[in-house]
Amino acid sequence: MNIFELNESAVRSYCRSFPVVFTQARGAELVDREGKRYIDFLAGAGTLNYGHNHPVLKQALLDYIASDGVTHGLDMYTEAKERFLETFNRLILEPRGMGSYLMQFTGPTGTNAVEAAMKLARKVTGRETIISFTNGFHGCSLGALAATGNGHHRGGAGVALGGVNRMPYANYFGDKASTIAMIDKLLSDPSSGIDKPAAVLVEVVQGEGGLNVASADWMRKLEKLCRKHGMLLIVDDIQAGCGRTGSFFSFEEMGIRPDMVTLSKSLSGYGLPFAMLLLKGELDQWKPGEHNGTFRGNNHAFVTAAAAVEHFWKDDSFAASVGAKGQRIAERMQRIVRRHGPDSLFVKGRGMMIGISCPDGEIAETVCSHAFDKGLVIETSGAHSEVVKCLCPLVISDEQIDRAMDILDQAFAAAMKGSTVTQAAG
Amino acid sequence: MNIFELNESAVRSYCRSFPVVFTQARGAELVDREGKRYIDFLAGAGTLNYGHNHPVLKQALLDYIASDGVTHGLDMYTEAKERFLETFNRLILEPRGMGSYLMQFTGPTGTNAVEAAMKLARKVTGRETIISFTNGFHGCSLGALAATGNGHHRGGAGVALGGVNRMPYANYFGDKASTIAMIDKLLSDPSSGIDKPAAVLVEVVQGEGGLNVASADWMRKLEKLCRKHGMLLIVDDIQAGCGRTGSFFSFEEMGIRPDMVTLSKSLSGYGLPFAMLLLKGELDQWKPGEHNGTFRGNNHAFVTAAAAVEHFWKDDSFAASVGAKGQRIAERMQRIVRRHGPDSLFVKGRGMMIGISCPDGEIAETVCSHAFDKGLVIETSGAHSEVVKCLCPLVISDEQIDRAMDILDQAFAAAMKGSTVTQAAG
Amino acid sequence: MNIFELNESAVRSYCRSFPVVFTQARGAELVDREGKRYIDFLAGAGTLNYGHNHPVLKQALLDYIASDGVTHGLDMYTEAKERFLETFNRLILEPRGMGSYLMQFTGPTGTNAVEAAMKLARKVTGRETIISFTNGFHGCSLGALAATGNGHHRGGAGVALGGVNRMPYANYFGDKASTIAMIDKLLSDPSSGIDKPAAVLVEVVQGEGGLNVASADWMRKLEKLCRKHGMLLIVDDIQAGCGRTGSFFSFEEMGIRPDMVTLSKSLSGYGLPFAMLLLKGELDQWKPGEHNGTFRGNNHAFVTAAAAVEHFWKDDSFAASVGAKGQRIAERMQRIVRRHGPDSLFVKGRGMMIGISCPDGEIAETVCSHAFDKGLVIETSGAHSEVVKCLCPLVISDEQIDRAMDILDQAFAAAMKGSTVTQAAG
Amino acid sequence: MNIFELNESAVRSYCRSFPVVFTQARGAELVDREGKRYIDFLAGAGTLNYGHNHPVLKQALLDYIASDGVTHGLDMYTEAKERFLETFNRLILEPRGMGSYLMQFTGPTGTNAVEAAMKLARKVTGRETIISFTNGFHGCSLGALAATGNGHHRGGAGVALGGVNRMPYANYFGDKASTIAMIDKLLSDPSSGIDKPAAVLVEVVQGEGGLNVASADWMRKLEKLCRKHGMLLIVDDIQAGCGRTGSFFSFEEMGIRPDMVTLSKSLSGYGLPFAMLLLKGELDQWKPGEHNGTFRGNNHAFVTAAAAVEHFWKDDSFAASVGAKGQRIAERMQRIVRRHGPDSLFVKGRGMMIGISCPDGEIAETVCSHAFDKGLVIETSGAHSEVVKCLCPLVISDEQIDRAMDILDQAFAAAMKGSTVTQAAG
Repeated sequence: MNIFELNESAVRSYCRSFPVVFTQARGAELVDREGKRYIDFLAGAGTLNYGHNHPVLKQALLDYIASDGVTHGLDMYTEAKERFLETFNRLILEPRGMGSYLMQFTGPTGTNAVEAAMKLARKVTGRETIISFTNGFHGCSLGALAATGNGHHRGGAGVALGGVNRMPYANYFGDKASTIAMIDKLLSDPSSGIDKPAAVLVEVVQGEGGLNVASADWMRKLEKLCRKHGMLLIVDDIQAGCGRTGSFFSFEEMGIRPDMVTLSKSLSGYGLPFAMLLLKGELDQWKPGEHNGTFRGNNHAFVTAAAAVEHFWKDDSFAASVGAKGQRIAERMQRIVRRHGPDSLFVKGRGMMIGISCPDGEIAETVCSHAFDKGLVIETSGAHSEVVKCLCPLVISDEQIDRAMDILDQAFAAAMKGSTVTQAAG
Repeated sequence: MNIFELNESAVRSYCRSFPVVFTQARGAELVDREGKRYIDFLAGAGTLNYGHNHPVLKQALLDYIASDGVTHGLDMYTEAKERFLETFNRLILEPRGMGSYLMQFTGPTGTNAVEAAMKLARKVTGRETIISFTNGFHGCSLGALAATGNGHHRGGAGVALGGVNRMPYANYFGDKASTIAMIDKLLSDPSSGIDKPAAVLVEVVQGEGGLNVASADWMRKLEKLCRKHGMLLIVDDIQAGCGRTGSFFSFEEMGIRPDMVTLSKSLSGYGLPFAMLLLKGELDQWKPGEHNGTFRGNNHAFVTAAAAVEHFWKDDSFAASVGAKGQRIAERMQRIVRRHGPDSLFVKGRGMMIGISCPDGEIAETVCSHAFDKGLVIETSGAHSEVVKCLCPLVISDEQIDRAMDILDQAFAAAMKGSTVTQAAG
Repeated sequence: MNIFELNESAVRSYCRSFPVVFTQARGAELVDREGKRYIDFLAGAGTLNYGHNHPVLKQALLDYIASDGVTHGLDMYTEAKERFLETFNRLILEPRGMGSYLMQFTGPTGTNAVEAAMKLARKVTGRETIISFTNGFHGCSLGALAATGNGHHRGGAGVALGGVNRMPYANYFGDKASTIAMIDKLLSDPSSGIDKPAAVLVEVVQGEGGLNVASADWMRKLEKLCRKHGMLLIVDDIQAGCGRTGSFFSFEEMGIRPDMVTLSKSLSGYGLPFAMLLLKGELDQWKPGEHNGTFRGNNHAFVTAAAAVEHFWKDDSFAASVGAKGQRIAERMQRIVRRHGPDSLFVKGRGMMIGISCPDGEIAETVCSHAFDKGLVIETSGAHSEVVKCLCPLVISDEQIDRAMDILDQAFAAAMKGSTVTQAAG
Repeated sequence: MNIFELNESAVRSYCRSFPVVFTQARGAELVDREGKRYIDFLAGAGTLNYGHNHPVLKQALLDYIASDGVTHGLDMYTEAKERFLETFNRLILEPRGMGSYLMQFTGPTGTNAVEAAMKLARKVTGRETIISFTNGFHGCSLGALAATGNGHHRGGAGVALGGVNRMPYANYFGDKASTIAMIDKLLSDPSSGIDKPAAVLVEVVQGEGGLNVASADWMRKLEKLCRKHGMLLIVDDIQAGCGRTGSFFSFEEMGIRPDMVTLSKSLSGYGLPFAMLLLKGELDQWKPGEHNGTFRGNNHAFVTAAAAVEHFWKDDSFAASVGAKGQRIAERMQRIVRRHGPDSLFVKGRGMMIGISCPDGEIAETVCSHAFDKGLVIETSGAHSEVVKCLCPLVISDEQIDRAMDILDQAFAAAMKGSTVTQAAG
């Protein structure tokens, strides 16, 4: 471990929970230097929906590299980009009635796509503030960080984070309080002190925020609110998109049409840095190069992304399998809850973006630590890191799910046994 | 061309100057779909110092992918990262007396490394403002954009860009005015209105700003100024680093020790998204994950970057060849100046980061357009896009340089013939 | 009217509602150039609690001027200041258990006192944001304006208004939703996106915001919340203080101890520019002159303010009379509501800070316009200017109240007759 | 002294230099409680150009109060305001070719007039930043504070001060460097990082900044620069106006036409809180009440201000006398310099805004302290408080000037004797 500690900044984080050196990875499995195999329920924080090094994508990438395809070309036209544009439009956008959306390749990180969306919303509307939500996570560069709720990350800014108005997410104040009605009152009141926002930036499922789920009804009302107050609706689908909730977009069965959608993480399909902003054609008021960057348009990512779309989204079978696996995981989780903490644990999330909420972060961390010892890589999320979050590859097998769930069951057994919460609950 | 125009946002830019579809690339050459070959004097805006798809790096990458090496692992420990840390430390840092610097893998874009540096400087010093310079370029996410001088990019922000105090770069007010003395006066005067800055963020050669060069003397005085006023010195070596000026770092023969150095662009060696912040050990006050992101630590880039360092920097021969080629280009450029505009053109820059300044942006653009027709990809930079900038791969052959220079000579001939400036000058 | 329109900026406002030239004023009466007399239910927007040109204060001021007492002395020691400090401490602070509070004479405007309070809160806590409330009004200079809710005024800023987090005032979301519980949840959640605030800035009755009243219970909970989260409690008592609600401070019967209190408007007693920040001794971390200004410490105002305190607050009789008159006005208002709009009008406010809420601003404006024709100067407040607000001098006679109420009754009759709202309600 | 220290905030400042209790004041004299008389060379930091309690103004004020003239009327029309508007227009604006300027009565403090000017400039131009200068002083509320250079005051803000670009004042970098040319280069360069400003805010003589003087030539070039770059020119004449430099406005003999002028301090003539923004008619894009405040339009100040204008500015004799006295003071100061520090002291300033610059603040403070012991109230200014500043009433007699200068001569003798600077210089 020495060389990492000696030469790498203390800012490194995940490696602290999983202090081994990984060497290989396939599908839902990671292998460390000692040859030990792990089931990966972290999956690059949602970046590996199609698993590690998927053979179809891998072959496409190897072929491209071997043929000296253009690797780096700024935003110049390449065949790889052309193929991605065509494939994504044909298999993703067109079938979902989104054929008129344009694609913007931002810097190859989610935060950069969010920055682009915020800039464009401000430019198009001539307004400054963006509404973002409690427990929202959108990135760590200064513009996106202002929209992020996490105090740990906000605290790193060193300057004031402005231009954002924070609003309560769906159910933030409980089931009975309509946060949409609250926001509407604030925006309708000319002396509320909340200036008319340029846009609303929202996750349909809050991944880092603790697997909080917005209902279709809430999202539809939010869209209406946007239209009423002249705000753009930006869905940050960086973690919840690319099939994670069962459909390609997390919102597609809700009947809404966001003005912009940010995508990254699993978009390349292979774990390569890549990000894209989808925008309605009429919003495309960018001047050439106005938001730029050296790595926008990663050709290797174009290759794997096109291959992934072609392979997984040419029909409905993949979506159906995600639904079934999500169901399988949910059931196993419900069993864990019933066995180890019916009064203190509960299942949260949607599709294959699902987890178990613990009474506190300490318990959740203990669970993850136990699990790692048994060969399961899994992490927490939530305001107090209290949710044990399953973000396994969508291509995971049922057998692997069951094995992971067995480990998780044991880990909860161990963690809840030692916990005063359970004892009190008992 | 149709599919790009139909589906991609109007923000695309370089493709407008080079409206062909590129398919392959090797060394200093690009090939378009029609089989036409181009000499690449843009090189990914400085991202391809080792050329397109260098065979040694390519093989390392193919091997890694074929063996199912970890592609995406967040910031977890991998063999690829370990090898990069070890190699970069051994061949780059240690020989330059920088062995105690730590490496932080930020999001894989230059702008993200700059954001990290600005955050850390503010955190460590407890001060807010960062000094950046006229004509400086540091990126387009909100934090870095505030430090960027370019009005076109700044105008896209849609919100106020704060936290930065702009100062005149070396020679900005001519040879005789010491901008260091000016800054010192402002910082020493308690009622100047310039609050004590956290750091100075500076490029040793301003790439996008028009190939403006800071002398060793100016840089040394700037370092002294930093020490005097308790500011950190951050060198943005994203474009000028990785050998572009002849040495690995643009500042290394100047006898200064920056507190932080940002690297990206050619760092991976292969055009893959990658960025790194080097920082002095005592500044490493990050909390785990305080500045994070999904793609920090791109394993493919670790592989090619380690291979590049091993291949090009194990001895001084590569640096020596860059010096010689820079000299060759400079001489050819001087000849162009003498022939086509001794009173209105002049050569600017350092090492292989060199160009010809034209009387206005129109002439420079005409030059580039002519050149492209003849098979040379080349772009402008500078406040008025008035500098024809050569950023060819450092591995380019003398023969390719000569061919490109012949094209440039013709392009200048054509552009200056039609120009009223020349006529007036004549 | 010509000279005003010719020479004064269009920013003038109240004069538009009352387009006559006033020449004299005594007690609750204004007289115009034609000799027409008006009952003043505006009273300088709460600046004339003791009426126009009160004879006792007037004599004290005349004597002081005649004797060549120091008029302007920056913040130097004068007898007038000494007498004010002594009197205010003896008759106001000491009897209310606030003897240890210090007095800071800021620039002689309410907004300047608010700016001072915000600065000091940030300085003392090392935090940046201030919580202010929906419909709050705190002034129009840039710092205070950020805390003000009114969009008309906010819109004049021309720059982003930062450093403030807006929270819902008491009952903003109805009687059943506890806004205190909401704020507590946001502040207790480390990823809510609401950073720990330096202070809460609150009006006990929101004057400009539409006579919204915070209950003693809400204020006590707010104070507890401040203690829990390390925030300072700043009560803006500029409009509601100096006896307006029956006691000198609007909060004094609530059992709370604000960390700071801003006072202005009626503080001088005579309508002279004057403002003061009261602060707990331990918060007095100002460096000399750190918040300064030419007119802090208006000696004429010291003279009249000391005389006012001596005259009105040496015993409880004045406070008792305010209670009785407030009651008288409230009863007359209730009668108006019953007669002209039992379903659409209602009485709002507390003490002699009371008004009638109309269905919309148009009706309220019509009421005020009718009233002015009959000799009553009265204005609206509220987000939609929908509240007809009575801010008459506290020294008004019962006869004057009755006369004014008769006029108001007629005005409502006229306004509601023409209103579709009533007809619909009927 | 007890009661002040016990009850007043530590923010008090001038009283620390002059720790006596003042009771009366007439013309250029202050009297303390012990009956000791002082010549006042501070004059309310420039607020008492016509001296303390001028008998003509005093009588006008007494008459107005005695007749129950309206004291407070928000911004309603009163005879007092009418008379001021008419008088100021007739005797000040019209004769100076400024008859088309409009008057805006802001809150009665200089800082509030500055806030109004900055707001209006941003509103009218749609731009955000304001250029202000090194060593400029414009006030302490958040908007104006951003434009103020003084670090002591800036440090009190507790939040970032944005929206201002700091530029070097006339001669800031020495006689030979043209700061106008520098600013022009920055504003003409589209990638300088200095966004197009809304306005330039400038003092013609920097009072608090150390009596730095802008030449007529510099001001004319600055005006041209404003026209070239579409910026408004705002002259802050709060300290230098109202006759201080010999003419009513400090700029009036320079042939420039500022877009806005801020006035306060001596505007009321009697030391009463009062402030005004003069603006060109075409800039009057305010909506009614958009920038408001309780005390805008102080009627007592209208009365004394109109009387002052009538008395002092009906012909040129007063201006002529200021010129002569300024000359007298300058000659005496030159003599002091020659006697006590020909190599280390020098005279700075213009008209009756003049002082002696010392090698450091310690010497200047010693001078003021000595002087106070001998009966002269005088203060320092400048970045290091190194300038002994004479701001005596313009109505001071020659005999009083001579007496004050004798004291100052002795004070310099004492201070320079003990100073190492002089010894070194000797």
